[in-house]
Amino acid sequence: MPRGAVAIQLSKGELTRQAVLEEAMQLASVQGLEGLSIGQLAEATGLSKAGLFAHFGSKEELQLATIQRAREVFRDQVFAPALVAPRGLPRLCAVLASWLDYVEREFFRGGCFFAQVSTEFDSRPGPVKALVASTMKDWLASLERLSAEARAEGHLAKGADPAQLAFEFLALAMGANNGYQLHGEARAFTLARKAIRDRLRAFAPGARLSPL
Amino acid sequence: MPRGAVAIQLSKGELTRQAVLEEAMQLASVQGLEGLSIGQLAEATGLSKAGLFAHFGSKEELQLATIQRAREVFRDQVFAPALVAPRGLPRLCAVLASWLDYVEREFFRGGCFFAQVSTEFDSRPGPVKALVASTMKDWLASLERLSAEARAEGHLAKGADPAQLAFEFLALAMGANNGYQLHGEARAFTLARKAIRDRLRAFAPGARLSPL
Repeated sequence: MPRGAVAIQLSKGELTRQAVLEEAMQLASVQGLEGLSIGQLAEATGLSKAGLFAHFGSKEELQLATIQRAREVFRDQVFAPALVAPRGLPRLCAVLASWLDYVEREFFRGGCFFAQVSTEFDSRPGPVKALVASTMKDWLASLERLSAEARAEGHLAKGADPAQLAFEFLALAMGANNGYQLHGEARAFTLARKAIRDRLRAFAPGARLSPL
Repeated sequence: MPRGAVAIQLSKGELTRQAVLEEAMQLASVQGLEGLSIGQLAEATGLSKAGLFAHFGSKEELQLATIQRAREVFRDQVFAPALVAPRGLPRLCAVLASWLDYVEREFFRGGCFFAQVSTEFDSRPGPVKALVASTMKDWLASLERLSAEARAEGHLAKGADPAQLAFEFLALAMGANNGYQLHGEARAFTLARKAIRDRLRAFAPGARLSPL
């Protein structure tokens, strides 16, 4: 390997683990995490059940690893690419646009992974709910911070409440995902984008909100 | 029975059926409809599995009957009591308030039944998804009609888009339910009520929005 190059070669075990988690995220986006079984994943990936048990000792361990992997995917697909936009309203709009585009293009077969599992586990206490809840809290906190930055830059009026905006953005994006998955109408995303733009315009009349 | 009185005495079979559906709605609000089993319901209600099979021939039949029963509960608990308010903005606000109160007071152990099952089935085609989808469409259509009436009465400005408002109300109420169930913070409902009031005020400056 040349000096300074980053190792990207994964061990065979790591490759297997990633392949299983990839399939687990896809399945969970449709049927939830509780419906996952090691047997079903073994069949889908062509691996032995014993081999899978070597990677994930229990169903709960598999569920937690799948959520951790989905967090990484979300960070890499949605969050990181949008952070290059200038601080303030442009960065907030870039993140919101990146997020809605990601949900709309169905990166996962069943739509948004976290919309599925956060509803599935919202009233089932335990380690899985705890990880889902902290993931959703982290995302809300990010949306709140981006909104606060836009206000601090003077891009949003002082009356804008970052926590209120973050709650509304999350509800509208999840509403679009659910409407689209349930009725197959892309209009759900049009309605969500319009709602978000209207909300931002109330605090930034005349501002440029592209790419939202 | 006196003339004109409505029969409210249920047959034993009908009572059994109602008891089972009551328990099924409670369980489904926590764990979804796919997790329901006739064995689990037999245990919870103290009935025999054979007796339950006599009422519901298959798991899918049980799922469909549970959704139909939840529709009735929703109509009786949320919709019907609010329709006595005067036509227009007062009736729209009464329905929205009744709905948010109902979700907040956790009529079902796991929060909103339809938030749970509409996410659970949104990407699983079949008769259950079809019934869930038509239920959510009916509710959206009701919210849209109430908003259109408020506009027709001159209570909301002409620029108000009933379909856009209905989409936002649904997303915000479901967002409040999910936030509350996931994080246990009643603040989610405060945020949803504020968002809905702000949205209505944009088209009805200074209007009275109680009991919302």
